Amino acid sequence: MPTIVVDVMPKAELLDPQGKAVAGALRRLGNTTFTGVRIGKRFELTVDGPVDDAALASAREIAESLLSNSVIEDVVAVREAETVAAAAEVGAV
Amino acid sequence: MPTIVVDVMPKAELLDPQGKAVAGALRRLGNTTFTGVRIGKRFELTVDGPVDDAALASAREIAESLLSNSVIEDVVAVREAETVAAAAEVGAV
Repeated sequence: MPTIVVDVMPKAELLDPQGKAVAGALRRLGNTTFTGVRIGKRFELTVDGPVDDAALASAREIAESLLSNSVIEDVVAVREAETVAAAAEVGAV
Repeated sequence: MPTIVVDVMPKAELLDPQGKAVAGALRRLGNTTFTGVRIGKRFELTVDGPVDDAALASAREIAESLLSNSVIEDVVAVREAETVAAAAEVGAV
């Protein structure tokens, strides 16, 4: 099914306690590669029909009004899911 | 700062009550464009150094072992953040 992905992250200027906790855990486990972690949400919206401009506009409106809290969160991406590319990426790592 | 993005989603065969609730809310609000919603997590890991194969491998290991619960979740992507491309996408919608 065609899918639109919406990514929502806590605003950069706000503390992200959940991310801070994970970053602290990584440090305690001896990992020095990553200095910070922020945790947001990823929504997958199944589209009934083609992913055209109207569907993307509708997804963007929903993302701004319902899926995120604009006081503390930013919508960082609204895009069609890249099914094959994502699978290849995961396999390549 | 260079950033690696990790996307984690609930497994396809599992019920996602949070996503189901959002899908129901959309339907009640009269939206017929989207038939399903699934909600996962997006992690942004700040890398201390370049995003090379070692950093991506380390991120993948952390994603599988710490950031996701492999019983109920799948790591769907581990990739370098696409800063300019993502901004353009958001602007275009």
